[in-house]
Amino acid sequence: MKKKSLGARIAIVPTPVWVVGTYDKDEKPNAGTAAWVGVCCSKPPCVAVSFRKATYTYGNIVERQCFTVNVPPVSYAKQADYFGIASGRDVDKFAAAGLTPVKGRLVDAPYIDEFPLVLECKVLHTIEIGLHTQFIGEILDAKLDESVLPEGGLPNLEDLGFFAFSPDCSTYNRISASIGKAFSIGKEI
Amino acid sequence: MKKKSLGARIAIVPTPVWVVGTYDKDEKPNAGTAAWVGVCCSKPPCVAVSFRKATYTYGNIVERQCFTVNVPPVSYAKQADYFGIASGRDVDKFAAAGLTPVKGRLVDAPYIDEFPLVLECKVLHTIEIGLHTQFIGEILDAKLDESVLPEGGLPNLEDLGFFAFSPDCSTYNRISASIGKAFSIGKEI
Repeated sequence: MKKKSLGARIAIVPTPVWVVGTYDKDEKPNAGTAAWVGVCCSKPPCVAVSFRKATYTYGNIVERQCFTVNVPPVSYAKQADYFGIASGRDVDKFAAAGLTPVKGRLVDAPYIDEFPLVLECKVLHTIEIGLHTQFIGEILDAKLDESVLPEGGLPNLEDLGFFAFSPDCSTYNRISASIGKAFSIGKEI
Repeated sequence: MKKKSLGARIAIVPTPVWVVGTYDKDEKPNAGTAAWVGVCCSKPPCVAVSFRKATYTYGNIVERQCFTVNVPPVSYAKQADYFGIASGRDVDKFAAAGLTPVKGRLVDAPYIDEFPLVLECKVLHTIEIGLHTQFIGEILDAKLDESVLPEGGLPNLEDLGFFAFSPDCSTYNRISASIGKAFSIGKEI
């Protein structure tokens, strides 16, 4: 295969889209959208979220050492995008978006009541990388909306309506039908 | 919305699926699949990949301080899954999967010729989190297959056939049609 070099850049690598919930110094809830994120450890269960120092979310996490991760479904893509455009320094983003902040049960950060999947996280490590600072947060609790939870089990990913982001393309793309079982379809090799 | 607490766990958070390419001490190319990954900085452009110390990939990265990220399309989902099941300690995974390792241009690690999108990365930080160790790698070069590159532009994400992974569900799910433009659809709020 002939490959074209695009240089030192992130290119179109698809990433998750997470809305990170925090309180500011006046207890005002804030929501900031990030795509430079990911799971990073199984034990303790941890996620990593990266923010520029210029963001309101950055200051709030440094101050409170905790945050929530809220995974938006397609039905709230507009609000998730808004949380990545506006700054909590200028506006009450929850109020503007018409969404409901709920104080975390275990951390001093708000989660978004309308989003189906939320994680409450406590900062374990702060890594200065460059333009972005990475916060590694231990997941203290994961919550799923009862409306998406089938009795006695967990929902299928495709039923949750999540979506991915792609730099360069600058689009949100739906995560849809299963194409196979993990730790299984490769066994025939 | 009534939320059900699932405890301290990663739950069904959708994640990317990346195959990480490395050389072992005998120059044997290896490929290990990881989902505890993500982009983590814009300048310098960086990605983070996490591995357990028990994996062959972990030792290779510690030794060579570099790796490649190879993003699999659905047509190679079986091979990507295999790379997450087998260990390079026991087998030549490239040979078993029938894929072609190509030595990176800028790093001492192989990329997968058949995959459409690859990143060559040099380790900048190593963070011991717990069961997993996180390697933050600076992207020195991104490459796209010429067959997926339209003239004078970049492809649409949906045309690349990438997929996401979900713990708990244990499925791979296709990343499909665009549901909106980023930094745009939220402007009306």
